[in-house]
Amino acid sequence: MMQGYHSHGRNPEVVFDMFYRRQPFGGGFAVFAGLETFLRGLLALEFTEDDLVYLDGLKLFQPDFLDYLRGFSFTGDIYAMREGSVVFPNEPLVRVHGPLIEAQLIESFLLNVINYQTLVATKAARIYLASGEGTLLEFGLRRAHGTDGALSASRAAFIGGAAATSNTLAGKLLGIPVKGTMAHSWVMAFPGELEAFYGYARVFPASTILLIDTYDTLESGIANAIEVGLSLMEKGQTFFGVRLDSGDLEYLSKQVRRRLDDAGLRHAKIVVSNDLDEEIVRELRANGAPIDIWGVGTNLVTARGDPSLTGVYKLVAKKEGGGYSPTIKVSNNTAKVTNPGIKQVYRFLDGENSPLLDLLALDTESIEPGEEFLCCHPMIDYKQTVMRDYGSIQPLLSLRLRGGKRAEPPETLAAIQQRARRNLAGLDTTYKRLKNPHVYKISLSETLKHMKDELIALHTGKRRQTKG
Amino acid sequence: MMQGYHSHGRNPEVVFDMFYRRQPFGGGFAVFAGLETFLRGLLALEFTEDDLVYLDGLKLFQPDFLDYLRGFSFTGDIYAMREGSVVFPNEPLVRVHGPLIEAQLIESFLLNVINYQTLVATKAARIYLASGEGTLLEFGLRRAHGTDGALSASRAAFIGGAAATSNTLAGKLLGIPVKGTMAHSWVMAFPGELEAFYGYARVFPASTILLIDTYDTLESGIANAIEVGLSLMEKGQTFFGVRLDSGDLEYLSKQVRRRLDDAGLRHAKIVVSNDLDEEIVRELRANGAPIDIWGVGTNLVTARGDPSLTGVYKLVAKKEGGGYSPTIKVSNNTAKVTNPGIKQVYRFLDGENSPLLDLLALDTESIEPGEEFLCCHPMIDYKQTVMRDYGSIQPLLSLRLRGGKRAEPPETLAAIQQRARRNLAGLDTTYKRLKNPHVYKISLSETLKHMKDELIALHTGKRRQTKG
Repeated sequence: MMQGYHSHGRNPEVVFDMFYRRQPFGGGFAVFAGLETFLRGLLALEFTEDDLVYLDGLKLFQPDFLDYLRGFSFTGDIYAMREGSVVFPNEPLVRVHGPLIEAQLIESFLLNVINYQTLVATKAARIYLASGEGTLLEFGLRRAHGTDGALSASRAAFIGGAAATSNTLAGKLLGIPVKGTMAHSWVMAFPGELEAFYGYARVFPASTILLIDTYDTLESGIANAIEVGLSLMEKGQTFFGVRLDSGDLEYLSKQVRRRLDDAGLRHAKIVVSNDLDEEIVRELRANGAPIDIWGVGTNLVTARGDPSLTGVYKLVAKKEGGGYSPTIKVSNNTAKVTNPGIKQVYRFLDGENSPLLDLLALDTESIEPGEEFLCCHPMIDYKQTVMRDYGSIQPLLSLRLRGGKRAEPPETLAAIQQRARRNLAGLDTTYKRLKNPHVYKISLSETLKHMKDELIALHTGKRRQTKG
Repeated sequence: MMQGYHSHGRNPEVVFDMFYRRQPFGGGFAVFAGLETFLRGLLALEFTEDDLVYLDGLKLFQPDFLDYLRGFSFTGDIYAMREGSVVFPNEPLVRVHGPLIEAQLIESFLLNVINYQTLVATKAARIYLASGEGTLLEFGLRRAHGTDGALSASRAAFIGGAAATSNTLAGKLLGIPVKGTMAHSWVMAFPGELEAFYGYARVFPASTILLIDTYDTLESGIANAIEVGLSLMEKGQTFFGVRLDSGDLEYLSKQVRRRLDDAGLRHAKIVVSNDLDEEIVRELRANGAPIDIWGVGTNLVTARGDPSLTGVYKLVAKKEGGGYSPTIKVSNNTAKVTNPGIKQVYRFLDGENSPLLDLLALDTESIEPGEEFLCCHPMIDYKQTVMRDYGSIQPLLSLRLRGGKRAEPPETLAAIQQRARRNLAGLDTTYKRLKNPHVYKISLSETLKHMKDELIALHTGKRRQTKG
């Protein structure tokens, strides 16, 4: 397509919106993540001579287009939500301004990064909420989709609420805390379980978590672990724990807690793992399973239940003559009709900073606190809300790249995680139910709704002409 | 764990098996993929000074262990199945021989690569079979889990049956054929649909596939496409097609086929896309939808329905005194009991090279054609089969790395894809049903079954002692 635009000399300034269409996992919110990974990749984007030789060999591209690629860098502006923000379907998360060819080139990379990280951050947030804002460890490397899929997963899981990762490279590259873990092979590599446990405690006395299900959790594992835990306690080590990785985690955690407590190891932590997800975590907690730390791998990093975010990237405006004209995709499927024009997203909050409604308005409109606003349903004319008793209004999209350069320094992952925690805490519980939650309202301003209706009519008109 | 083994001076020669436990997608087979990606990574594995500085900063590792890592390279042997082979649960796909610390280090990387690529190759094979061994294009970049998740997906999809990918980088790095595609934004970037179609045909006259659903497929898209298709035909271009990306693909493809045929464009191809998977493809074909090419993205690369292969890596033998002793993991869950010892997998084939049964035997056993073999169920004593009227026996694991160096040159992706096609063609249809297929038999030799029973008894004995 870039070659096509280049051949036609068709390279107007355009605006694309990246948004998603449907809330993942049947939930009520998503947690925006991936922006910094995207921006870093975009700033490093170039075509090497090696790339150009390959493209030339495909016999699809003209020499002047390959010359154009040789000097390529992104020169446009990017507006985006803040990572860690709670977000909703059909509102722009990223808005890209630039020449058509540049804006088109970055589509797949943008979608690849934001779709996956937002999906995993959302899954992590769901598990984090289900655990009562407890301690989650991300253990997903072995089941993640590729090695950098694993890195992205560690980053997004941290944003959504994980305390640490087992992926040491994610620790090194992203500064995420790392936590190791004992595998069954450790136990099997020693002549016996007790010797294996003592061996581990000697090397890691201050972080001993013993995996107790290699042979039999209640018959051998817990007894051997208690012996080692008591010997650590005698030496003044107060951190100690056991991990359950199979069997019925509710039954076993209750039994193991009682055995630990009876032995005087009330400080010992119980860590569980084994195909956990938000539903299982919630049920275990509801039934009073005495679990301190949740190790979550496969279902988190593969986003089981909904393995792709429905993020898309759509042209919303193009420069013609002096100004921008809005564009629309109509399609046969009304849910796929896009919201045209260059838009800002305004979040209305109540007096306690809890979100009430998000309003999409043209960026030329003035949306200031104190006024009343008519908020229109994106498709259905009679559904309208008037916002009047709100506390404040927050514009959500801000400029991040100006003319292809950073408009502000990158945020730290810790700051992003804190934002996610604040955003999740502020969100009403009705939106946080795992299943069948309250649907958060995303509305259009009156001006935007009129523009959309007119464009639909215009394209209907065009179609009739074409048909005749 | 490596630090732990190092501190204890516990670094015996060991053998690990990589295998998976459960057939993905409720199907009857998997297609093995990812080995070459793993071997290439393993051969390049090293710890840089930068890595060592990071690890040192974690305050977990001792200086002599970091020194050991500084000179690290894998020195062991690797046996594996051939990529593109049809494989089954609980049989070793990869067997790693080496010092414990080395064999342990590579676990996560091995599992990450093989789990994901085998999963996607299997999904691709299911869609390929459902399409009647038709033409699949892999379009998954924007929904794949990370950028190299996308590359791995393109590779595995090609092995499983995809003809090409839309990911140009996969084309460059892996030599996979690439196919471009028009997006809705192309149509929206022009003043009208017809002008957009002519614009595309002028640039790509020999590979014009027009996306006809931006405004209205049957009201405008197909009429405009036919006009362009006829003008290409007049110029002698015989390749032409349309793509449907929304709406009811059966209804629309039938309507569009009729319109194309009536206009004299019988050579025009119909390409479809939009959340396709093997079930949808099978139903569309069963109902006679005249579809020539299937564009598959999200559901293929995210392996929807079963987003993780249950691959694990288990210690099966360790050197003690002069020879290897077999090891076993017993656990509370009988399905998680491992098969001990150093094993070869033998595939029994009928006279037409169709697989009958796979037998796991110790690599010291002689399994030669012409004899009868008692094949034991892995867990249940009374379930046994005698193999006698078979055509041939194929050992499936072969040496790929010897002492950390390649034992043979890498295979080409094209050769691997051909093997997958032959393997799938040879597999009886009862194993290829999408749902509730015939369960392929994976058996143990009598010798192996005895060894396993004895080890289980031994560990039960140990447990009783511990308990007392």
